[in-house]
Amino acid sequence: MPQTRIAVLGAGGLGKAAATIIGMKSELQLTAICDSRGIVASEAGLEPSAVAGIAGDLVSGYRAASASRVAAAGASSVATATDVEAEHCVDPIGEILSRRALYDSVLVALPNLPNEFIPGVIRRFAEADASLVFVDVLKRTRAVSQLFELDALVQQARSVVLTGCGATPGMLAAAAVLAAQSFIEVEKVEIRWGVGIANWEAYKATIREDIAHLPGYSVERAHAMSDTDVDALLDKTDGILELNQMEHADDILLQRAGVIDRLDQVEVGGVMDTRRAKKPVSTTMTLTGKTFEGKRSSHRFVLGDETTMAANVIGPALGYLKRGLWLKERGIFGIFGSTEFLPMVVK
Amino acid sequence: MPQTRIAVLGAGGLGKAAATIIGMKSELQLTAICDSRGIVASEAGLEPSAVAGIAGDLVSGYRAASASRVAAAGASSVATATDVEAEHCVDPIGEILSRRALYDSVLVALPNLPNEFIPGVIRRFAEADASLVFVDVLKRTRAVSQLFELDALVQQARSVVLTGCGATPGMLAAAAVLAAQSFIEVEKVEIRWGVGIANWEAYKATIREDIAHLPGYSVERAHAMSDTDVDALLDKTDGILELNQMEHADDILLQRAGVIDRLDQVEVGGVMDTRRAKKPVSTTMTLTGKTFEGKRSSHRFVLGDETTMAANVIGPALGYLKRGLWLKERGIFGIFGSTEFLPMVVK
Repeated sequence: MPQTRIAVLGAGGLGKAAATIIGMKSELQLTAICDSRGIVASEAGLEPSAVAGIAGDLVSGYRAASASRVAAAGASSVATATDVEAEHCVDPIGEILSRRALYDSVLVALPNLPNEFIPGVIRRFAEADASLVFVDVLKRTRAVSQLFELDALVQQARSVVLTGCGATPGMLAAAAVLAAQSFIEVEKVEIRWGVGIANWEAYKATIREDIAHLPGYSVERAHAMSDTDVDALLDKTDGILELNQMEHADDILLQRAGVIDRLDQVEVGGVMDTRRAKKPVSTTMTLTGKTFEGKRSSHRFVLGDETTMAANVIGPALGYLKRGLWLKERGIFGIFGSTEFLPMVVK
Repeated sequence: MPQTRIAVLGAGGLGKAAATIIGMKSELQLTAICDSRGIVASEAGLEPSAVAGIAGDLVSGYRAASASRVAAAGASSVATATDVEAEHCVDPIGEILSRRALYDSVLVALPNLPNEFIPGVIRRFAEADASLVFVDVLKRTRAVSQLFELDALVQQARSVVLTGCGATPGMLAAAAVLAAQSFIEVEKVEIRWGVGIANWEAYKATIREDIAHLPGYSVERAHAMSDTDVDALLDKTDGILELNQMEHADDILLQRAGVIDRLDQVEVGGVMDTRRAKKPVSTTMTLTGKTFEGKRSSHRFVLGDETTMAANVIGPALGYLKRGLWLKERGIFGIFGSTEFLPMVVK
C-alpha cells in the first residue's frame, strides 16, 4: 500500500508531536510542515525526528538538524539533504498550498486564535480547488460553527474536512455518541479533562487558547499576551489553570450527531498544570441519561493518567485522517465532525 | 422523513425489548416479527407494546392482545386489527423473507445456536437477492467469522450487514477502537461484563448461549438442555454464571479494525446473575497500551450499573442499523463489524 503523504500546518508542541507520531507509522509520510515564519518540504519525505527536536524557528532548526545529520552520515547523504526545501517566507500557508502535489492530506495543528483563523485556511484551500483530506483539532464552538458554513465550498473542491478531532472535542465526544446508545433520552454530557505539562513553553499556543476561557479573558486578549504576561498570570496559581463551563465544540458536534438537543446539555471543564507532567485530574467523559425502562444511569470513558495531551490529541487526529481518506475514496465529500465517524487505526 | 420499517427476527427477551424500544423511536416502525412458530406482520405497522407484553407463543399472544385492544377501543379499531397477519407456520424466516416489501431493515435477535444459524439466515436473504440492511447481535467468534465469508454474496444483493452490534461485541468493542487512538501499540483489551436479570426465563436463549461457554459445555450441549436442566445447573451456584476467557467476536472485530494483531490480546469474561436484577459486577472495557513516548497506560469505558442488558444490546443495535442505512444510501454494500463505524443516534 502506498503511504499517505501528510502536510502538517503548525510546528508548535502539537505539530512536533504529530511529526514524531507520523514517523512511527509505516502508513504515513511527512512531506511538508510550516510554522508562522517558513516551510520545510520534500517530495522524498522529511525526517520526522529532525522536526520533533527543533526548539524555536522551524526553518533554521531543520537546516541545523540536517547539517549535523549530513556531517554525521558523511557524503552519501548530501543528495537527500539537498532535496529538501527549508525556506523562510511571508506566507507559509500559501507556500504549502502551492506545493499541494506533495501531499494527500493536511493535519491542521495551528493555534486557532482568532476563531476565524482555521476556517480561513480551509476556505483558502477550497477556493484554490485543492482536493484533499483535512483534519483539525479545533476546540471552540464558534470556530467549528464557522467551519461548517464552508461545507458547500469544500464539497465543490471534492475535499473532506474532519473537524474537532483531538481529545475533546474528538475521542471523548465520539465516546459520548457510543454511550448515548444505551439511553432513550440523554440528559447531560460532562467532560472534565486533566493535562499536566512540565514546561508550558512547549505549548505556547495551547496555553493561550486555555487562558482565553478564563473569566475576564477573551480570545483576542489571550492572543495578545506576551510570554512574560503568561508567566505572571501562571505565577499567581502555581502554574494551575482551572477552567469551567468552557466554550467547547463538543456541544455542537454532539447536537449535530443527535445525542443532545440543547448546547447547554454539554459541560466541559478542566485543570491544566503547566509546571508538572502529572495530570491534576483524570480526563473523564460522563454521559447521563434515562433508559427505555425509565432508569437513570451514567456511562463513563476515562483516559489513563499516564497518557499525555499530545498522545490523546494527535493519535485520534491521525485516526480521523485515515477515516477522511476512506470517505474521499468513496466520493463522500464535505465537512464532518468527530461525532459522525469512528476514527480508524493507523499502522 | 419517512420512517424506517423494521422486521425483527426473534421474539424472545431481546426481540421484545427491541419492539419496545422501536415503539419509542419516531424514526422507526415495526412491521414484522417472528418467533420459531409463526409471524406477525402488517403494512400499517404493528403495535410494539402488544409484542412486548407477550408471554410464550408470539402469534397466539399477539392475537389475544389485539382482541383485547379491539374490545377496549370499540368498533372503530376493527379495520386496523384485521390488516395484521398473525399466523403460525412451519418456516417463519421464509414467510418473513417472502414479505420483504414490508420492511427496509432487519434486526436479527434470534438465538444463535448453533454457530451457523444466523449466517445461514443472512445467506438465505442474500440468495433471494433481497437488498436490505441487517444488524445482528452475534457474540461468538466462529459465528461472526462464518458470516464474513458471505461478504461477496451480500454485496451482490446490494445489502449491508453490520455484525456484532450489541454491547459486547458492539458498543464496548467500538469503545476499544476509540481508546486505541492514544497508543502507538495496543497490548491488551479486557472486557468484563456484568448482567443481572430477575427472571432467567425471559432470556432463555441468552442463558443457553452463556452456558455454552462453561467448561465442559458446548453450543450443541447447551442448545439441547431443557428448562429443567438449566434450572438444575443454576441451582448449584445460586443462579450465578461466571464465565472466563469466552470465545467472543470482540477479538476478530478488533483484529479486523487493526487494534490488535493476535486474537489472544482480547480477553472477555463476565458474571451473570439469573436471580437478581442488580448487576454483580460493572461492565468495563479496559484497553492497555504504550504511548508514543513509551508510557504504558489504560483507558476505560464503564457502563452504568442501572443499565440493563436489553438497553445495552438493543440500543447500540438500532444505532448501527441507522448507520447501515447510511451506508446503503451511499451505495456501500457488504458485511462490516461494529468496530468499523460509529453507530448513529436514532430519534
